[in-house]
Amino acid sequence: MTGPRYTQLVASLPATVPFVGPETQERDRGRPFAARLGANENVFGPSPRAIEAMAKAAHDVWMYGDPENHDLRLALAAHHGVKAENIVVGEGIDGLLGYLVRMLIEPGDAVVTSDGAYPTFNFHVAGFGGAIHKVPYSGCHEDPDALTARAAETGAKLIYLANPDNPMGSWHGADTIARMIAKVPEGSLLVLDEAYVELAPAGTAPVLDPQDPRVIRMRTFSKGYGMAGARVGYAIGAAPLVTAFNKIRNHFGMSRIGQAGALAALSDQDWLTRVQVWVSDARATLGAIARANGLAPLPSATNFVTIDCGGDGAFARRVLSELIAHDIFVRMPFVAPHDRCIRVSVGRAEDLAAFDAALPAALDAARA
Amino acid sequence: MTGPRYTQLVASLPATVPFVGPETQERDRGRPFAARLGANENVFGPSPRAIEAMAKAAHDVWMYGDPENHDLRLALAAHHGVKAENIVVGEGIDGLLGYLVRMLIEPGDAVVTSDGAYPTFNFHVAGFGGAIHKVPYSGCHEDPDALTARAAETGAKLIYLANPDNPMGSWHGADTIARMIAKVPEGSLLVLDEAYVELAPAGTAPVLDPQDPRVIRMRTFSKGYGMAGARVGYAIGAAPLVTAFNKIRNHFGMSRIGQAGALAALSDQDWLTRVQVWVSDARATLGAIARANGLAPLPSATNFVTIDCGGDGAFARRVLSELIAHDIFVRMPFVAPHDRCIRVSVGRAEDLAAFDAALPAALDAARA
Repeated sequence: MTGPRYTQLVASLPATVPFVGPETQERDRGRPFAARLGANENVFGPSPRAIEAMAKAAHDVWMYGDPENHDLRLALAAHHGVKAENIVVGEGIDGLLGYLVRMLIEPGDAVVTSDGAYPTFNFHVAGFGGAIHKVPYSGCHEDPDALTARAAETGAKLIYLANPDNPMGSWHGADTIARMIAKVPEGSLLVLDEAYVELAPAGTAPVLDPQDPRVIRMRTFSKGYGMAGARVGYAIGAAPLVTAFNKIRNHFGMSRIGQAGALAALSDQDWLTRVQVWVSDARATLGAIARANGLAPLPSATNFVTIDCGGDGAFARRVLSELIAHDIFVRMPFVAPHDRCIRVSVGRAEDLAAFDAALPAALDAARA
Repeated sequence: MTGPRYTQLVASLPATVPFVGPETQERDRGRPFAARLGANENVFGPSPRAIEAMAKAAHDVWMYGDPENHDLRLALAAHHGVKAENIVVGEGIDGLLGYLVRMLIEPGDAVVTSDGAYPTFNFHVAGFGGAIHKVPYSGCHEDPDALTARAAETGAKLIYLANPDNPMGSWHGADTIARMIAKVPEGSLLVLDEAYVELAPAGTAPVLDPQDPRVIRMRTFSKGYGMAGARVGYAIGAAPLVTAFNKIRNHFGMSRIGQAGALAALSDQDWLTRVQVWVSDARATLGAIARANGLAPLPSATNFVTIDCGGDGAFARRVLSELIAHDIFVRMPFVAPHDRCIRVSVGRAEDLAAFDAALPAALDAARA
């Protein structure tokens, strides 16, 4: 008995995962973290209305969710001033990226991204056999001109840009992104991952043009809306592209509870406004902690602050290990030269205090 | 601007969906159903402990769920007497079927199923370009010998069998399935979809042998456990196959709330026992209603009863339309000769009373 015969592609894939979860690390360490600041979660959580809606929906969980996500799509369409036909809802941006890559990429097809950008996108491209072409960041920013130029050279079907960017927290203004969209080569599609855009300065997101076939915008309830554990993402794009997701998506894949929570969260924009203030304040506190320890916090338009540790990757990895040994869960960019940094998500006062307390000893140990 | 370039396969796929949701039908009709008896949902719902766990988890929804589904996999492993390495958790059986097909099937690869069996499996096979070979049912039962024989003829990589079966509600005993597993041709994998097995007579599921590379067992919290809206399925299989899902699955795809609910539901087997009694009683009531109207209910090991309307497909479709016009949501098998039947999920007393009240008029109208 030889067992199943995998496709050649799947047989060739490594068993790596983009991110090791904090729970896995806690199990390996044998004790919990004191502060969970590594996964870019939004500790301030969703609107109380969303929590209430999810608790209520738990009583109706015997029913499948609406496979068309109709009510949520309608509400999102109204919120963004587009039509429901321009919105597809999926199992987080990660899920939607997987569907999108599947729709466009077959083995050998070219895809362009930045070296060190969001690895889950690369995971999906590799999972469908795409050929990933990476361009360097320009300093701490993804480089729109380099991305579109490389796409033109390689005939890329997909170009990935996160704005704001993870893991660096940097961002481009709407004008820069609008110019980039104008330069998307014929036959390329720009995946504009705007997971963090609700936490960015006004003027970061370019005007939505749902007729434009050159770009698809990815949004989520995981970051600004504080519902990472509910797995609700959505994409905004031209109707033919949005409709094509229906050919392959898991139609009954959305949790009914997540749908209800997202709808309630969207309706409470006042809560989002408060979260924006809390996140901004916490970013400032993280920056002050970093500076007080002689480190350089990078400007951030997200719910995390990437902190330049002032050394090389090996040094930052030691700082990271020491922080984890001090029960502070943080992560860091994977790729040089960004791996000179650590990446710290915003937290409540007590989380930031725990980071503040642990950082000096972590730095001392890393320098020793 | 021509827009994105789809893969040849995706460009060729139709925009059909396996099932139109009841909400869509309600929107089209302009009014709600009085009884929701068409989606094989479990109206008795999950354990109150599961509802409580989900409501509690809603407060922690700012955190991603554990991407390894560790606690749930451990509990499932203990429940089934296997190891955690034999369990993969996913976004419902539908999600896991999609991953499995992706791992094994490339364009042209042979797959065997029964003509009229669960269409979402076919949706996934078509979505990866597989060549679907269908064998007829033997009466109201899927035909294990025909399936393995056709797999041997076609060199199929996958064989699909649901036990108990949807849409017919029929089932084979464990001995028959064990004999089928023994006949799985070298290089084929049997997908044994046991979504309804908790509602079947004892002795329906063959002994689990997690070392056996010829079969993967699909289970769900959507049916017996009453949590369709939470999207929690799992598969039990040989460790190399289970591990291979990690190469491609959406690692952060599981809702934290769903994980918590499933864990609590699993721990309350007393509730499942009560549900089994309620489902069994409701099946008996549905059968009595059918017989009182001169129709022939088929034996069922599921939470639905398939009812032979005694005519052809056109007649059953008229009965279905009339029931829907009377605000009773039911479905029917898609394929002849099973499309002489309608398929009615079990309900509470009031749901069954509504069906009982509507059926005579629906039959009269269908006969007129």
